[in-house]
Amino acid sequence: MPPARGDHDARRRDVSRAVWRVLATRGFGGLTLRAVAAEMQASTGLLTHYFPTKQDLLRTALEVLDQRNQERPRRVAPAEGLAALRAALVDVLPLDPDSAAENRIWVSSWDVALADPELAAAHAERYRRSRLRLTEHVAAAVRRGEVPAGTAVEDLAAAAQAFVLGLVVQALFAPGEFPPERQVALLDGWLAGVAAPGVTWDS
Amino acid sequence: MPPARGDHDARRRDVSRAVWRVLATRGFGGLTLRAVAAEMQASTGLLTHYFPTKQDLLRTALEVLDQRNQERPRRVAPAEGLAALRAALVDVLPLDPDSAAENRIWVSSWDVALADPELAAAHAERYRRSRLRLTEHVAAAVRRGEVPAGTAVEDLAAAAQAFVLGLVVQALFAPGEFPPERQVALLDGWLAGVAAPGVTWDS
Repeated sequence: MPPARGDHDARRRDVSRAVWRVLATRGFGGLTLRAVAAEMQASTGLLTHYFPTKQDLLRTALEVLDQRNQERPRRVAPAEGLAALRAALVDVLPLDPDSAAENRIWVSSWDVALADPELAAAHAERYRRSRLRLTEHVAAAVRRGEVPAGTAVEDLAAAAQAFVLGLVVQALFAPGEFPPERQVALLDGWLAGVAAPGVTWDS
Repeated sequence: MPPARGDHDARRRDVSRAVWRVLATRGFGGLTLRAVAAEMQASTGLLTHYFPTKQDLLRTALEVLDQRNQERPRRVAPAEGLAALRAALVDVLPLDPDSAAENRIWVSSWDVALADPELAAAHAERYRRSRLRLTEHVAAAVRRGEVPAGTAVEDLAAAAQAFVLGLVVQALFAPGEFPPERQVALLDGWLAGVAAPGVTWDS
């Protein structure tokens, strides 16, 4: 007899939490059925019910990551134009232990994602959507006169995304050299260049 | 009787090449003794002689990566100041299949490196040295008047590194959206902001 629906959902939540804890400590390279089972004090047999293949486990892990990302509290109030762009970028940075853990898992996910065409496509789509949101902020900044007219808004959004992703990687490997205040200062330095009169992103 | 020295070196080269091929196709997540052995058409028993532990295999893989990186032909002639900074950054980008493969392996290495304090420290040191080289180029650019006086050279070098690392990640996931000419154009857009009068990286 299959478990009642409520039991099933509760168990799925337990599984999701265990997957998250394994990812936070060992990354995707350490994500195995055995590790998740140990984290739950359950049998690997139970888990093969949820994850018949390694691919299923990875897909679930990425879903957990998406869900965590959507549910986490945002640091900053919504704004418009350059302020909104800045807020969206600040929000990505590993400025506290929770966001450092989350970023560490995202960076870790790039390895498995690049090794699998389906996961790579899903990741590409995630980053494309993120660039679209940044593009809207840049377009608003141009309309508000905060960024020079003639700016190639999609290029500037792509540059913004590149900048924060690379900053995340640097900060994860060298947290001592990249404390929160320096990360924000570097971002503000980049934004100052973006907003400088006479510099147009018209590549 | 141990093999003659020449045999030993030749075998090590075979092992290194096999490790490289496994990394290029499967990333660090797919790097196992079995995969390397299959690539060499050798037994896993032979390989345990070279790699008693998984940690040894990972360390060797990172050494192979370092060595490949040092040996690969550079695209650009050395220059000074802003031109040297640009050349060093262009050189990182995945502008052809070989550098895409190499970058894919580096990005993949971040997962295992972040999961292991010793490997993480080694990676942090690699990126720190790279930032030092970029800092020298930025300092020369300031001396040559190509970048505003008063620029915080270490911050600008860190920003440069962040920008190209993030651009690499974007280009690997979305090569169609980031063809070589767009990567270079994005980099040049960033450099134009850096060199703009009135924008100083004095965070």
